[in-house]
Amino acid sequence: MIQVGVNGYGTIGKRVADAVAEMPDMALVGISKASANHTADAALKRGYDIYAPDGRAEQFEAKDMAVAGSVEDLVVNSDVVVDTLPEGMGIEHRPLYERHDTPAIFQGGEPAEVASESFTARANYEDARGEEYVRIVSCNTTGLNRLFAPLLEEFGIDRTVVTLVRCRGEHAVISADPVKPPSHHGPDVLEVLPEIENIQTMGMKVPTVRHHMHSINVELESAPSEAAVREVLENESRIHVADGDLEMNSGWDLQEFALDRGRDRMNLYENQVFEDSIAVEDNQLYLFMSIHRESDVIPENIDAIRAVTDTASRDESMTMTNETLGIGEY
Amino acid sequence: MIQVGVNGYGTIGKRVADAVAEMPDMALVGISKASANHTADAALKRGYDIYAPDGRAEQFEAKDMAVAGSVEDLVVNSDVVVDTLPEGMGIEHRPLYERHDTPAIFQGGEPAEVASESFTARANYEDARGEEYVRIVSCNTTGLNRLFAPLLEEFGIDRTVVTLVRCRGEHAVISADPVKPPSHHGPDVLEVLPEIENIQTMGMKVPTVRHHMHSINVELESAPSEAAVREVLENESRIHVADGDLEMNSGWDLQEFALDRGRDRMNLYENQVFEDSIAVEDNQLYLFMSIHRESDVIPENIDAIRAVTDTASRDESMTMTNETLGIGEY
Repeated sequence: MIQVGVNGYGTIGKRVADAVAEMPDMALVGISKASANHTADAALKRGYDIYAPDGRAEQFEAKDMAVAGSVEDLVVNSDVVVDTLPEGMGIEHRPLYERHDTPAIFQGGEPAEVASESFTARANYEDARGEEYVRIVSCNTTGLNRLFAPLLEEFGIDRTVVTLVRCRGEHAVISADPVKPPSHHGPDVLEVLPEIENIQTMGMKVPTVRHHMHSINVELESAPSEAAVREVLENESRIHVADGDLEMNSGWDLQEFALDRGRDRMNLYENQVFEDSIAVEDNQLYLFMSIHRESDVIPENIDAIRAVTDTASRDESMTMTNETLGIGEY
Repeated sequence: MIQVGVNGYGTIGKRVADAVAEMPDMALVGISKASANHTADAALKRGYDIYAPDGRAEQFEAKDMAVAGSVEDLVVNSDVVVDTLPEGMGIEHRPLYERHDTPAIFQGGEPAEVASESFTARANYEDARGEEYVRIVSCNTTGLNRLFAPLLEEFGIDRTVVTLVRCRGEHAVISADPVKPPSHHGPDVLEVLPEIENIQTMGMKVPTVRHHMHSINVELESAPSEAAVREVLENESRIHVADGDLEMNSGWDLQEFALDRGRDRMNLYENQVFEDSIAVEDNQLYLFMSIHRESDVIPENIDAIRAVTDTASRDESMTMTNETLGIGEY
C-alpha cells in the first residue's frame, strides 16, 4: 500500500484525500489543515487524521478536534505527499519534502520549475515514472491536454486556438484576463505536449462558479467527419461527450447532472464536451468543452502518485483510478 | 430637416431618440411608449412627445402624462420611422409603415428578410441609399463589421474565428448558446460583408451586464506588424483602441471610463479594442474587443436614416453623426 499524505485541504486537497482513501493500492496517512473550522470537522467525520502546522494544534484541541501530529510528521509518515497548498506555497514547502526524501506532487498554481515534469496522465504518464517531483497542470490545461492527445494521435494538429472563459471573475462584468495573449494555458500545454507547437490561448474571467467553458478551434492535419471525431472522443475515458438528446449546454446543466447522478461533492472528473457543438469544416474542428474546476485534476493527482512510485503503467493506473472513482459511469 | 419618429422606447429607442434630437439635420417627432412609468416621465422631461398604442392613452392621462397621439399618428407625422420595438414586433409593424409609405429602420432582432439591406455604415452605407427598409444588424455584428471592413481593405481576410461572450446570461453559470455553432453573428456578418466568406462565430452567455467581450482571430491574407494593425484600427472613427497605459481590460473598467468622461447614459458608441491584446503571429491576428450593447448601434441607426432618405454620402453622414455624438472624443 502506498502511504499518501495530503498537504492542504482546500478545494483540490479534500477531493484528492477522498480519492486516495478509495484507491485499493493506497492508504491515506492524513491531511494538513491550518484552521479548526467546519471543514476540519467534516474531515474528521470522514475519518481523516489531521496534521496541523506548527503553533496551530492548540486551536484544534480547544475545540475538541483531534490532531495526529505536525506537517513534518505527515511528511515523515508518507511515501508520497500531494501538495495542494494555496498557489505559491508549494514551492516554499519543497525543501521540507527534499529533507525527508519524500516524492511530492504539486498543483498547476506552482511555477513549472517546481518539478521536473508537468503532468497529464493521458499525455505523458510514462515520462513521470520514477520522478521525485511532478506538477499537475491546472484544471483547464489538463482538460486541453486530454482533448489534444487523442486528436494528435488520430488526426494530427497544425494549429489550435482556444478561448477559455473562466469562472470566479469579480464584479458583474467580463474581463480579458490576461489582456495580453497568451494566457498561461498555451505555454503549459506545450510543457506536456510540445508536439502541438502552434497554440494560442485567450483567457477571460466572468463572475460564475464551478465550471469553465472553452471555445475550441483545432486545425487538424486531416479532414475527418464529425462522426469520426465524436468516436475518437467517446473512446477517451476522461472525456464525456454529453449526448445531444440530453439538451445540456451550461454549467447549470452540468451541476444538476452531477447532483442527479449522486456524484460526491458534485464531482465531474471528465472533460464535458457537448455533442451538438462538434463541428468540422474541412480540416477545422470546433467544439465547446466545459471543465469542472474543482475535480478535473483529481484523477491526475492519483495517477501521478503511481507514476512517482513507479507502481503501475499508464493504462493500469488510469483504469484503476477510473474504476474506483466511477469515471465514465452515468 | 428630416422628421424622425422612434417607435419603441427601450434600451435602443431612448438612445436613438437622444441622438436624433441632437442631429443638426433631423427633428424628433416623438417616441412611442406603452407604459406610463418612470421611463415615460424621463422622456417627457427630456422634451420628447409620447405617442401611445391604441387603448393605452388613458393610462398616461390618469398620471398627468401628456400624450401627443397614436402610434399611427407618429408614423404619419414622420419622414422616417426607427423601429426599436421588442424582437419580432418590428416585422409585425411593417404593414403599418408600408400603408403610409414611410421608410423604416429595423433592429437586428428582426429576421434579415424584414428589410432589403442589412446595414453597418462603415461597410455598406452606399448599398442602403434610397432603400425603403433597412435593418441594423445586432450590436455584436455591428462591432464585427466595423472591425472586418478595414482589415479586409488593408490586409485581406482568409478566415476568421470569433468567440462572443455575451452579457445577460441567466444563473451564475456559463452557457454555450447556441450550443451548435455558428451563432447568428457569422451569417449576419455575411449579409453585410459577403466577401469575408469564411467565418465561424461561437457564442456564450454569462450573467453580466452592459458589455460583451469578443475573442477574435483573423487569418489575414498578408502578415502585417502589430503596429500596422493598430494604426489601421486607430484610423477608424468607430473603433477606440484603448491605450495600454490606461490599464483597462474589463467591462467594469469601461463603465468607469464612460462615467468618468461624462458620457450620457454611459454610452460607448465605439468598438473598444484593448491595445495590449493586439497580437500578430505570421498572418494570424488576435485581439480582445468589447461592445457596449446599449449604444453601439445608435450611430448606425442615425446613418441609416440619412441613407434611406438619400440626404448624405457615407462619409458625410458618419462625420456628422460622429461629431454630434462626440464619437472619438475622450
